[in-house]
This record gives sequence, C-alpha cells and structure tokens, in this order.
Amino acid sequence: MASVFGTVIHLSIFGQSHSPAIGCSLDGIPAGIPVDAAALQRFLDRRAPGRDDTATRRREADAPEWLSGIVDGHTTGAPIAAIIRNTDTRSQDYDGLRRVPRPGHADFTARVKYGNWHDVAGGGHFSGRLTAPLCIAGGIALQALATMGIDIAAHIQSLGPEGIADEPLDELERDEAQLAALRAHNFPCISTDAAGRMRAAILAARDDLDSIGGVIECAAYGVPAGVGDPMFDGLENRIARIAFGIPAVKGVDFGSGFAAAYLTGSENNDPFRMVDGQPRPETNNAGGILGGISTGMPIVWQMAVKPTASIGRAQRSVDLDAGADAELTVRGRHDPCIVPRAVPVAEAACALALLDALLEDGRFPTPAPRN
Amino acid sequence: MASVFGTVIHLSIFGQSHSPAIGCSLDGIPAGIPVDAAALQRFLDRRAPGRDDTATRRREADAPEWLSGIVDGHTTGAPIAAIIRNTDTRSQDYDGLRRVPRPGHADFTARVKYGNWHDVAGGGHFSGRLTAPLCIAGGIALQALATMGIDIAAHIQSLGPEGIADEPLDELERDEAQLAALRAHNFPCISTDAAGRMRAAILAARDDLDSIGGVIECAAYGVPAGVGDPMFDGLENRIARIAFGIPAVKGVDFGSGFAAAYLTGSENNDPFRMVDGQPRPETNNAGGILGGISTGMPIVWQMAVKPTASIGRAQRSVDLDAGADAELTVRGRHDPCIVPRAVPVAEAACALALLDALLEDGRFPTPAPRN
Amino acid sequence: MASVFGTVIHLSIFGQSHSPAIGCSLDGIPAGIPVDAAALQRFLDRRAPGRDDTATRRREADAPEWLSGIVDGHTTGAPIAAIIRNTDTRSQDYDGLRRVPRPGHADFTARVKYGNWHDVAGGGHFSGRLTAPLCIAGGIALQALATMGIDIAAHIQSLGPEGIADEPLDELERDEAQLAALRAHNFPCISTDAAGRMRAAILAARDDLDSIGGVIECAAYGVPAGVGDPMFDGLENRIARIAFGIPAVKGVDFGSGFAAAYLTGSENNDPFRMVDGQPRPETNNAGGILGGISTGMPIVWQMAVKPTASIGRAQRSVDLDAGADAELTVRGRHDPCIVPRAVPVAEAACALALLDALLEDGRFPTPAPRN
Amino acid sequence: MASVFGTVIHLSIFGQSHSPAIGCSLDGIPAGIPVDAAALQRFLDRRAPGRDDTATRRREADAPEWLSGIVDGHTTGAPIAAIIRNTDTRSQDYDGLRRVPRPGHADFTARVKYGNWHDVAGGGHFSGRLTAPLCIAGGIALQALATMGIDIAAHIQSLGPEGIADEPLDELERDEAQLAALRAHNFPCISTDAAGRMRAAILAARDDLDSIGGVIECAAYGVPAGVGDPMFDGLENRIARIAFGIPAVKGVDFGSGFAAAYLTGSENNDPFRMVDGQPRPETNNAGGILGGISTGMPIVWQMAVKPTASIGRAQRSVDLDAGADAELTVRGRHDPCIVPRAVPVAEAACALALLDALLEDGRFPTPAPRN
Repeated sequence: MASVFGTVIHLSIFGQSHSPAIGCSLDGIPAGIPVDAAALQRFLDRRAPGRDDTATRRREADAPEWLSGIVDGHTTGAPIAAIIRNTDTRSQDYDGLRRVPRPGHADFTARVKYGNWHDVAGGGHFSGRLTAPLCIAGGIALQALATMGIDIAAHIQSLGPEGIADEPLDELERDEAQLAALRAHNFPCISTDAAGRMRAAILAARDDLDSIGGVIECAAYGVPAGVGDPMFDGLENRIARIAFGIPAVKGVDFGSGFAAAYLTGSENNDPFRMVDGQPRPETNNAGGILGGISTGMPIVWQMAVKPTASIGRAQRSVDLDAGADAELTVRGRHDPCIVPRAVPVAEAACALALLDALLEDGRFPTPAPRN
Repeated sequence: MASVFGTVIHLSIFGQSHSPAIGCSLDGIPAGIPVDAAALQRFLDRRAPGRDDTATRRREADAPEWLSGIVDGHTTGAPIAAIIRNTDTRSQDYDGLRRVPRPGHADFTARVKYGNWHDVAGGGHFSGRLTAPLCIAGGIALQALATMGIDIAAHIQSLGPEGIADEPLDELERDEAQLAALRAHNFPCISTDAAGRMRAAILAARDDLDSIGGVIECAAYGVPAGVGDPMFDGLENRIARIAFGIPAVKGVDFGSGFAAAYLTGSENNDPFRMVDGQPRPETNNAGGILGGISTGMPIVWQMAVKPTASIGRAQRSVDLDAGADAELTVRGRHDPCIVPRAVPVAEAACALALLDALLEDGRFPTPAPRN
Repeated sequence: MASVFGTVIHLSIFGQSHSPAIGCSLDGIPAGIPVDAAALQRFLDRRAPGRDDTATRRREADAPEWLSGIVDGHTTGAPIAAIIRNTDTRSQDYDGLRRVPRPGHADFTARVKYGNWHDVAGGGHFSGRLTAPLCIAGGIALQALATMGIDIAAHIQSLGPEGIADEPLDELERDEAQLAALRAHNFPCISTDAAGRMRAAILAARDDLDSIGGVIECAAYGVPAGVGDPMFDGLENRIARIAFGIPAVKGVDFGSGFAAAYLTGSENNDPFRMVDGQPRPETNNAGGILGGISTGMPIVWQMAVKPTASIGRAQRSVDLDAGADAELTVRGRHDPCIVPRAVPVAEAACALALLDALLEDGRFPTPAPRN
Repeated sequence: MASVFGTVIHLSIFGQSHSPAIGCSLDGIPAGIPVDAAALQRFLDRRAPGRDDTATRRREADAPEWLSGIVDGHTTGAPIAAIIRNTDTRSQDYDGLRRVPRPGHADFTARVKYGNWHDVAGGGHFSGRLTAPLCIAGGIALQALATMGIDIAAHIQSLGPEGIADEPLDELERDEAQLAALRAHNFPCISTDAAGRMRAAILAARDDLDSIGGVIECAAYGVPAGVGDPMFDGLENRIARIAFGIPAVKGVDFGSGFAAAYLTGSENNDPFRMVDGQPRPETNNAGGILGGISTGMPIVWQMAVKPTASIGRAQRSVDLDAGADAELTVRGRHDPCIVPRAVPVAEAACALALLDALLEDGRFPTPAPRN
C-alpha cells in the first residue's frame, strides 16, 4: 500500500516514468465542487518541465485526460480519475541502469525489493514525474479549499549551497501584495532579486555538470481553528506523510521547526491576545498547529529538497551483475535543480492533507445541491 | 482516528494525563516473540520522570500492568494491551486552564475542536505522559527487531540555544564501543563531556524559570536492504508520521536532511562500492533510505524537540470565558527540558515504524513454533 | 490488523478469555456526547452470561472499568478505553485443548497460524467473551445515535432446527408497541409465545447434550436517507464486516436478502411513492439500502448464528502432538444456544457501523459546546 | 473512501457507466508475478455482456488498456493500472432518471447523498459495469494465487423463483472432472441439464418483461491452513466486504451458512480426523474457516444476487422535481438476469480478499528474482 494517501479521501497514484500513462484516482471528494480545468492546467504548468531555461529541456505537455468523476465542470462524488500519456520517452537512455545503479536514486533499492522486476526506465514509479498526478489531485483539492476561503502558497525559501534567501511568507496573515508578487513571475520567489540570483545559481550548477537543492516554504491561509487531531493524525503528521512522498524531500518541519530547538520556551511560546474580539496567538512559531490541531493562524511548514541526484559528472557505482566497481555517467536531460518545479507540488501536498483533515472533522462545508 | 498507527500492526493509544489509566493496544504482532518484561521496564525507566535532577520531580512508576496478548513471556498473536495507572495526579493544579490557555500547549486548540468538552487536566490526551504507552509498544517492537539483529539507538545530537553537541552516531556501521558508552550513563549522550554541559544548561534554564529544546538523532542498525515503499509509505513517511505524534516534535529529517539543501549533487549522492563482495554506499547522506526503501546502511534520522511549553515565568494569554487578555503562570512540576526523556521515545517510534514495514513486506522472520 | 474496525472511528478490541482483562479502545468519537453509564450497564447485562436459565451458569459481572475518554458523563474527544476484569476463570478446564482441538472452534486454526503460541484457555482471543468489549463500544455508539433519533433493535427471528419464528420487526416504520413488547421481558423476542417455545427448545438441546443456532434480525430506525457509499464502503459492507467479527456468525443478509434470489424483479423492486410530501419506498425489500446508501427506510438485516460449537457429547478429533485420532469431550459450562446473548451484540455492531458512516459523511450532528 | 479495498493490497476502482473510461489501480502486488494477458482477457470475457442470448445485447469489448505496473508480462511492484474505454454509450436513454428514480437502483439515494450532482447516466458509478475493473484486478489476483496452487471456481448454485439447482461444488476437495465440466460450456453451471433449464428460465423472464435472481456458490481450493485473522479481518469479513461491493448482492454466507442456524451443534461441527498423516476436518460445514482463519479445507461461500432492478414493465415511482407520483418504464437494453455474468465477479472478489490476507500474513511466496 505504497502510493495511497488519506483517511476520508483516498488518493491512488499510478504509473512509471515510461509506462503508457501515469495518473491518479481520487476518491472521497464531495459532490458539487466546481473544477476549473483551465486553472488546474495553469497549476500543472507550474510543475511541468521545459518551461524555463533552468529546467530540463524535456517537454511534457502534462495535459490531463479526464476519465471519470467530473461532469459539467463539477465533481460528481464518484472517484475522480485522470491520466497523462507518456509521449517523450527515450527508454534507450536507461538500459544500463538495471546493472549499474545511479547514486542517489532508487535503482539499487528497487532492485533489491522487487527482485529486479521493477521498471528501471526513467526511474519507473520512483520518478519525479509521478508528482504530476499528485498535482492533478492537489489542484482539485486547492480548488475545493478555495471555496471555503483557504489559500495555499509556497515559494523557495532558500536555494543552493550559499542559501540564497527569498523574503519569507507572512506567517501572521495573508499578504495579498506578497502573494501577487509571488504569482507575478515564472519563478516561485517573492523577491525579484532573489529570483534572479537563484536562476543564476541553477545555471551555474548546470554548467558545472552538478546540481543544487533548497528549502521550500509553504503557508496555508484561512484554515479555521480546531482542525486536526492529536498524536498520529495531527496536521503535522498528515502533511509530513504526504510531503515525504515527493521524491528528493529529506526533511519537513513546521513553524520555527528545527530552529525551535535553539530557542527558549519563553521565546518559542506564542502568547495569546485578544484581537478584534477573537483570541489568537501574537506570534506563530507553532506554524499554526498546537497538539496537531490548527490554531487559526497560517499553517506554515518547510521541506528540504536535496540536490537532483542525476548529474552530468562521472560517478562511482557498482555493476550489480558483475559484482564489481564501475563508473557511471548519467545520460539524458535532467534538471540541475528541481526545487522550482517542486514548489507547486508542496502546495498540492498541503492541500490534500488539509482537505482530508477537514473532511474527517466534518468541517468542509457541503456544496449546495444542484438545481 | 487520531491515536492509531500502522498498516499491518495497529497501535491504539488511550488515556489522559489524569484519567484513571493510560495504555495501549498493539495488534498485529506475530506470535512467539519473546518479551523480556524486566528489559522492557528498564527501557520505560529511561523515559519516566523523576529519575534525574534535570527532570520533573513528579514520580510516576510507569510500571505497565499487562492485560492481554502475552503468555509465558511470549506474544500470543492476540492484541497486546497494557495500562499504567495514573496515581500522582494533582487535578487542582489545572483548574483555570479551561479558561486561560497555556501558550505552546493544546489547551486552546482542544477547546475549539472539542467544544470545551476535552479533559483539560494535565493536558489531557495531549500530555507528554502519553509517550509512556508509546514506549510500551515500542519496547516490544524493539525486542522483536532484536530477534532479527536490528538495534536502534538514539541520543541528544544538540541541546539548547548554544547547540551543545554530542559526538554523532556512527552513520556507516554499528559501533559497539559507542553504543556501550551511550548506554553506560543515565544521560543519553555518547560523550561524557557533552552530557555534563547539557545537564548544566538544563539546570540553568530551570533556575531561569525557562526551558530549552534540542535535536535527537536516532539510528537503526541492521535493517536489511529492500524494506519500505515508494511514495506515501516510504520509511521516511512512516517514521515521520509516528515521530510527529510525539508532543513537542516540530521537525523530522533523514540523513543529511535539511543540510542536504546546502550540498551539491556530487557531494550529497552516496557512491556505491563493492565491500566484502556486497554493493553498498560509501557514504550515508541518504540516511539509509532511497526511494523510501532501505539501502542496507543504517537508517539515520533526526527530530527537533521544541523547548518545554510549560515554564515558570508569567506569560501573556487570554481569558476565553471573559474574552479578555490575561496573564498566566503555569504551576505544577515540569521538566525544564524534555529532550533527554524523549530519546527513548524516538527509539520506540522508529522501532514501530520499521516493524510495520518489515511485516508488510513479509521480511520479518516468522518465530519458531512452540514445542 | 485483526481486531480493529472503522474509518473515522477506530475500535480496537483486546483480551483473551482468561487474560487478566478484556477491553476496548474507541477512538474518533466526537466530544460532548452524553454517556449514561447505568443505561450502558443495562445494555451489557443483556449480553452477560448467567442471567437466564437457558444460558451458561458462569457468572461474569461484565462491569466496565472506565479508563479514559469520558469525564463528567460526556465524551471528551479522546479515545474511550474500558476494561472488564476476568475473574471467574478456570484455566484447568482447557489444558488438553492445545493437543486436541475442539470441532467448530478456532483451536486448530489458531495453532497453525500462531505456531502454537496462542492462548488456548477458554478460546483465547477467539472467545465469545470478546463480544463484551464490542458491546461497551457499541453501547456508546447506540447512545450517540440516540441523540440524533436513531433507534436500533434486534430480536431472534428464528431459532433451532424447527425454525421457531418470532413476529418480524416492522420493516416500514418504528412500531413503539412492538419495541416495548420486545424490551418488556428478558428474552429477546417480540412474541411471548415464541419466547416460551424458544426457551423450551434451548433447554431441550441442553438436556440432549447438544446445541442449537438461529437467525437474528436487526433494524435501525431513523437513519436519514443518503448515508453510506457505493462499492466497498456501502452500509452492507460496513455492517457485514463488523457482524462477521462476532464469533459463530456464518451469514449476513439485508432486507429480503437470500430470499431476493427467489423473487422476480417486479416483486423485489420497492416502488417509490410520495408520502406526506416526501418520496419514500412503499416496500422495503432493499432493507433500507440501495447502492450502499440509506434510503431513509429502516435498515433491516439478518445474521445467521451457528449452533454453539461446545457441546456436552463426545466428539471425534485428533491429538495434534501424537498425530492420531482422538475423542474429545468438552468440559466446562457452556450455553446450549448463544443466540439470545448475541442479540445485543448485533445491535452494537450495527450501531458502530452506522456511526462510522455518519461521521465519514459529516452527517452526525456536532454536539453543543460545553458552557 | 468508497471504492477502495484491502490492507496490504490496495484496489481503487473508478469510472461511471458513461464516463470516458472505467478502470482500476491495484497497488501492493508483489513484483515478478507473471500476468498472462490472453488468459485474463478470457476471464473478462466471461463477465462481458453480449456473449449469450440470455444477456443484454449491448456489446462492450471490455479489452483493458494497460497503463502501468506490468512490463515484459510480469508485475513490476508498482501499482497496476488499466482502463476500459466506454464506447457503446447511449446517454439519451437516461435523461429522465434524475427526476424519476428507478426502483431498485441507486438513483434516489445517490441524488440525496450527492446533492443531485451525481452522474445519472447508466447508473453512473453504481453501474454493474464497474465490475469490469474489479475483474481486471481479480483476474491478476487469480493468476497470482495460481502460482501457489490456489484455484477458485464459482457457479450458479440456484436460479430463479423455482430454485433451479446446479450440482454443488465439491466442498471437500478439488474435483478436476467437475471443474472441467464447469469450464466446458459458456454457461456457469456444472450440470448441463441445469444450465439448460436456467437458460430457459432467463428467457422466460425476458419474455415476461421481468427479471430473476439467484445464488452463486464459490470455492477456493488449495488455501493453506492458518491464513486470516480473528474478529474484523477474518476471511469471512474480508470476502463479505468485497462481495457486498458487487451491485445486486444482498446476502453472503459461508459453508452451511444460514442453513447452520437450523442444525444442531453435533450436526454442524466438523470432526477432525487424521488423513494421510495430516489433521483435517471430515466435513466442511465451516466453509473452510474457523475463527476467521483457514482450516486447509476449501473456502466455500455463497452470495445472493437479487433480480435485475431494470425491468421492462411500467413501475411506480415519483417525480422528485415535481414532488408527485409518477410512472416509469425503464428503457435500454438490460439483462433479465445478471447472475451468470456475476459468477466470474465472485471469483475475482474471492481472489482479491484471499491474496490480501495471504500477503498480510507473509504467506504469499516471494516470486523468484529476475535474472
């Protein structure tokens, strides 16, 4: 039960990098939610490769083919299924990978687990390409959440070895100007200056036949207080469970997160105050979550994305059939940095986790019946 | 479905800080696993309060009362249930908390979610005390894993605002001397020097009516390659899901984790080499996990523990009944730092996540039948 | 994951017939539901042995000891745990069962599955005694459903080889007089005459050192239309999944059920009519469920209970250690018919299944907040 | 979470009767299982409409388009997805159903649950057509089970109001001659004579503009002893949960099932005897299951299939928009009896339930690694 997420919703993701298609089935979504296919396509385009000179030159349209669950632009209550055809596949690039595993990829572990029966081409089911159906499902979740006033935004908080930093997302309230700036350009940064320096760092890594990583910050605005659960189904657990499903993510934290370990209690605790007649925390080191349950403040979390495992340089590996050391040069067209493309995936993951919690708590408003 | 974990195993945790008892039911554990109750008690003692002058002076025996699932010192295959009686309860300490929520605690979010019906005494179901039954279940999992040669160890990697650092756990192989040192003294550090400085920092925080946090590192040695799953049931997802169930944990990462965001691909990728006729990574930035599946290297992960929310200082809060600002001084006896006591909880969480994955993969060896 | 039920609620049942205690943890119940402990005890008493001369003479008080999740007579939102101590245990009765399995019991299958490590005394975790914690959980669910006007009743539809039949429950609407009659006496029948004949049949089976079974019918009145799901989470699937968890149940059907196989479509289809301005089926062959979803009519289902496997007569079996045929006479005190005691268990199972579906659909009304 | 089944495997079914496609994603299947696509197609053909003059004349090729999870004729360990295009759709047949619900169908309950947003055409997600992807998944499960010697067969046990009976499946051991007879002709009966009479009954029902139902019996041969779980994950619970997911199934029982309620314990208990040095029950009233766990005898169960809800006669219904009584004549081409086509679906359901239990128990043999 690997590629399945959720308690009330149920997301199943299928496909391999070079199988005929990749896709998803998303069960448990209430009926009557409007789905704007054009807006969803724009969301998918933010993840798709080939849009920007910092990304791989592979071009994949990532246009979902809707199979079920949506009629007349609304969810029907039945499982929503969509697929994306794999067209630009070049299986010959990957022929040797079954013998010589790529460092940093799942080639070796998949060979052991699956007795060498796994689909090695393009990373198979482990490919970052599988984040496309995650974004289809997440895109629907984002539109569902928008109907109740929840808005989710992510950006690159920090990029590369030098830690090129963007302006932080407002952790206290939705800042329309900031979100407008973030959505104004093709690169997921608030600061135009940071965006420029990040692009330069990515291109430099490419020229160096190397790759770089970064940290993505994501905020959900408008989540009402009281959503989530203690212990194993807290909002942290739910978001972390899905976020670690994104290839290359190696760390997840919330609010002050790892930095909280370096604060004192008197610094880290968020005092409550009455604001406009409502109790709310004055600060948001908790990232909007206490005891696994939303405080009413923005849900703020970060995820660490490792540098792309595929690099142009020769690397040391082993020939598993020969049982001997080997050298490997990964061919094909790869992103020197997948962080920009992972930003909408963080939003998708966050939306799915929150929607599931809201539904389980009976807090998602029932859509109006159809006339 | 908040306090339930696992796919093949099923751990249910129940109880509130001041309810008659806390406990757990652990379903899905194979029959025939020897359970050493004395060793399990020693494991629980590492988490229990009152053992050390750096911890709260509350004394709770934390002696489990076994209700079911174990006969003649072996698991029977039936659910294992155990409880711990709550004896040293002082409910009067908490009377005002329903009105004036403690910053950093779940008092406020629980009031919103549960319509003020939650048990506020001692934090109710949100209390750190609920990690005791987690350790009962985890202690059984640790003993089960030991039968197949898996050994899990955790320690304080870093403590307090100054980041007092312990020697890191060996990330390449089990180091018996290191583990012996770690287990030789009462404080969960490898280095005696670091232990001394950490103790001093905790006592200083107490004197300052404040609290501090830290980072715990945990390693699982002996996990065979090929265990785990891609996407949402990878070892990272499973460990993170349970680790975020530990109160005060605000971040989880694996291997180089957040630091990976600052490395290049050529630095972060772990090259493979043949060692003693077997392929294995030369380094372990991946924390023993690629594509959610174990590489055969130690599973290494970290969790950030925020400073204890309960501090002796007066704090700003609100009176929810009066709808007015208020000041709050938390009474009662609290740990100025819960990091030392959280170390065995990290081991417990890791053991439960790994055992579940091994069982789901059919990789946990069936115990020999009883004569 | 054997003894766990539910999607939004999560019921874990633990204990063996002769372990120190049996019990349950029930997670996911909303906060603020009033729990009347005296009424719950009366419900448990209907299942408890020793109340009637047709039942086993073992006396077990079945008084739950509440461990968590209920404060001031209301649910708190935290998991509800309760146990029942096992006192009247006579383990010596069962010493030979490990070698010579009782026909019709799980002694043999448990020995194979658990490598002979299972607790054989009294049937261990397979004992009908485990329906006591199921009734604790179900009793809470029944009280929760009552707050929204749902009333569940069961009775013996048919008993013994001659099929002694009770008057059927009204399948079209709640009949207060019928329910009052059913609840007026100790034996779960509507008809006093049928009750008398059933009692006589049970006592005759006892005198004959044999046992008899029967069919239980259960109806849930007041379930609103539109609850449940298609395919694998329909109300039928949910009720069947939990009902087959009751030992001795070998069949479950809904509405006309197996008899529907002998009707034509024109007979079995329930026509719709407008009644008091509302659309409703005129008949209820569907048992209140179409496509897995409630129609608004009573949910009506039946379960077949096999004759008690423990009988006083000598039976053929095998000595598993000697690998030879053997003869077995089951000792101890057993019910010649467990059908009367299984009636409240059917109600409990039905209540838990319905409550889970209502919660998953967001159709259970949120209790009012506490002042 | 309606259309999802399994613990270790995870089957998601999607699609509506008239959506672009229907399909499934089947996660958790081990890598290296050979999948014979031609044999699977023959299995699907047994369910497909239009093959026989007793069935609907709609012709649907039901040829799966494989999207993922199978490479070189073997499972890869990744989720297996396949779809079937909906081609022969005639949406205009269904235009009025949103207003006037068909008796015996889910039109009314779906309208209530989904706020009238459901896809009404052809029954939408409630259509019997959704059993096609269930058979794709089940067909793979059947092939997987065959690799360990498990063979599943079903037939029509009884058909129509007169209960035309087939010869029963051998409940004690696999009877090759019987299975060969069953598989020799197009109609799923062992007895040629019974087949002839059943066909005649179906054609008579058609001529009468009516429909008939029946009972299907299914047996799984070769299931080793010791598979399954007590309480809620017994083999009965698992099979029932999936079998009630088949539209029109209203009852499920095991072994002597409902008939057990009319036996005495001394009749119904299956005595054990040593046979060829192995302990085994002499009879099989238990249907191969005791305490939820397999006895090593054939797993035998029955499911009741109601008469097709769609009949040619005028029926009473209501106009939900007008709030008035109405008369309805269902148009379109429908089976006067779906029992023959439901026979392979029972086999599919049984296979999926057993495979999941075998995998959870670690009893499914790991396929040999690929060279």
